[in-house]
Amino acid sequence: MSEVYAARRARLRERGQAAGNQSTLVTRPANVRYLAGAAPQDAVLLLGRSEDILVCTGPPEDRPTDGRPDDTLRVHILPGPAGDPAVAAADLALAQHAESMAVEEHHFTVARHRALRSVAPALRLTDLACAVEQLRVVKDEEEISCLRIGAEIADQALGELLESILVGRTERHLALELERRLVDHGADGPAFATSVATGPNSGRRAHRPTDRRVEEGDFLSVCLGATYRGYRCEIGRTFVIGTTPADWQIELYDLVFAAQRAGRQSLAPGTAYREVDRAARQVLDSAGYREGLPTLMGHGVGLEIDEDPQLAPAAMGKLDACVPVTVEPGVHLPGRGGVRIDDTLVVRPEADGGPELLTITTKELLAL
Amino acid sequence: MSEVYAARRARLRERGQAAGNQSTLVTRPANVRYLAGAAPQDAVLLLGRSEDILVCTGPPEDRPTDGRPDDTLRVHILPGPAGDPAVAAADLALAQHAESMAVEEHHFTVARHRALRSVAPALRLTDLACAVEQLRVVKDEEEISCLRIGAEIADQALGELLESILVGRTERHLALELERRLVDHGADGPAFATSVATGPNSGRRAHRPTDRRVEEGDFLSVCLGATYRGYRCEIGRTFVIGTTPADWQIELYDLVFAAQRAGRQSLAPGTAYREVDRAARQVLDSAGYREGLPTLMGHGVGLEIDEDPQLAPAAMGKLDACVPVTVEPGVHLPGRGGVRIDDTLVVRPEADGGPELLTITTKELLAL
Repeated sequence: MSEVYAARRARLRERGQAAGNQSTLVTRPANVRYLAGAAPQDAVLLLGRSEDILVCTGPPEDRPTDGRPDDTLRVHILPGPAGDPAVAAADLALAQHAESMAVEEHHFTVARHRALRSVAPALRLTDLACAVEQLRVVKDEEEISCLRIGAEIADQALGELLESILVGRTERHLALELERRLVDHGADGPAFATSVATGPNSGRRAHRPTDRRVEEGDFLSVCLGATYRGYRCEIGRTFVIGTTPADWQIELYDLVFAAQRAGRQSLAPGTAYREVDRAARQVLDSAGYREGLPTLMGHGVGLEIDEDPQLAPAAMGKLDACVPVTVEPGVHLPGRGGVRIDDTLVVRPEADGGPELLTITTKELLAL
Repeated sequence: MSEVYAARRARLRERGQAAGNQSTLVTRPANVRYLAGAAPQDAVLLLGRSEDILVCTGPPEDRPTDGRPDDTLRVHILPGPAGDPAVAAADLALAQHAESMAVEEHHFTVARHRALRSVAPALRLTDLACAVEQLRVVKDEEEISCLRIGAEIADQALGELLESILVGRTERHLALELERRLVDHGADGPAFATSVATGPNSGRRAHRPTDRRVEEGDFLSVCLGATYRGYRCEIGRTFVIGTTPADWQIELYDLVFAAQRAGRQSLAPGTAYREVDRAARQVLDSAGYREGLPTLMGHGVGLEIDEDPQLAPAAMGKLDACVPVTVEPGVHLPGRGGVRIDDTLVVRPEADGGPELLTITTKELLAL
């Protein structure tokens, strides 16, 4: 695996050199992990002129780590607990005769920036901006394979829950049971706080589970995901509790399903991000649900659960092949509840069969 | 409750006015929650010249919120999803005729700082530094009561686990079961990732649970905490699995227990932070465990699990009454395992009975 990380760092270095950066400091944890294979707490990654160095604040066994550092990478451990690894990295960059260092200004704090300018006034600080986030958008097959396994785990956890008795159980307990099942099936952990929403709560995005119990006739909407080797996927489904869904439930479900299908079908290399949003949104819009819709219809996933691209009305850019995204429209009717349907898919060219659906749990309206 | 938040904001405003700030922008989520009663995702709090405003990025029901905003506070929702609430807050400060605004430079990013200077060049930006974190150190009785309930919940969850069969179960499953029990007993959720460490892993700080199974003769060390109404506590205990602990286990346990007791007994208003660290550390030190000790022997707890003060060798400052802290020395012998003992206590004057122990699970060496 270490060639993968070295190759990623080489690509970043090429971009940086084109921009005139002599060294680069990566501080955002998901970016450190992407380039170094691991992001021990507080660690930063220096791409120096002659050597790349992972700077850590303490012995790795004292720190919860995520993944294993690429073993070709030099690891530098600060001598004392009080030091700032970014300041140490600036010293290390100077020792490699760098005159400038690009930092992630969207993650770097003002206080840290000032500390660096004060201890290393000879080092000109520039802005790396979101260069690493941009590299992370298109995934390699190894990364997609981690997402695929994560999605299988989430499908399994959800499938088992559906076989159990649901009426009378609280949202919080159902969410906890799903998280336990994710880990049972091999997840590192949940990809985000599992959302279980019943009755009037159903259909709300990122609803926090409450002590409300599942009742006959409820909509039940569930959103969960597994983290597998650091990669995070997402699935959301809505069910009806009881034997026969009410007419309004069937109508609303069919509408959100149609919107979600339109979004999925629009996924192709070259499609503008905003077109995917529009494809899903206009189905809901034309049925009269313009107000209160989610601000986006999907987003990228990977080492973070919400990363680029944003599939939103004002987003700029076009999809590439091998970009995993969610498609997740929903409608929530205050006081009554609603529907969300959420899949993780990988954008693939038509010749390869079109978008690859990772979360394969049925999207029929099941009455449980 | 809203008077509490208004009073906290008044104290911060007084300090700010003394420093010449005409307005203050709070962005760090735990600080927003402390002053506003809630910290909806991405929300920021403006303390203006004439009015305080919580600036949110979207309708509250779209966002996972933590707590309820103080209902005397004006809530301003951004019109679109793409806006930065800090930029909106700068405009709102200018509308109140502020000429300067203090920001949390240790949390504010360089990119955000630049955006503010560009859209509101008339607003002079100054540094609030850790003024809110300093206000948060001493807790009121309401806050301590939340910590006390959280500690009771953690004690209950741990007590129930000890009554179950442990041999053969994995670290990951035991950690998940503890987290489920925390929620069963009324926690909002775990205060941090529950740590369960067996055999050679035992005694490691913040060990991430693995698939290792509990075996006869193991040390088992557990560290968990509950979040209750936003407040986070911590308890850590070490047990022996099987009927009779080995001699080395008894010796190591007694040593860490003596260090932890020395740390607890040193807690009093006026004691220097570093004295608490030294009290515990020198017990381990004089037994020959100087290398590989944790970098600190305890820390403050509250809305965050690790907040000021740090009970560490180089920490500056003295304890006050009503400061809740952990005391958590440990020793880990590579390849063999080790012991950690961790309590949450509230500093109280001698006249009030001395330090109040919140986590009351026994610290006898139990053989399970």
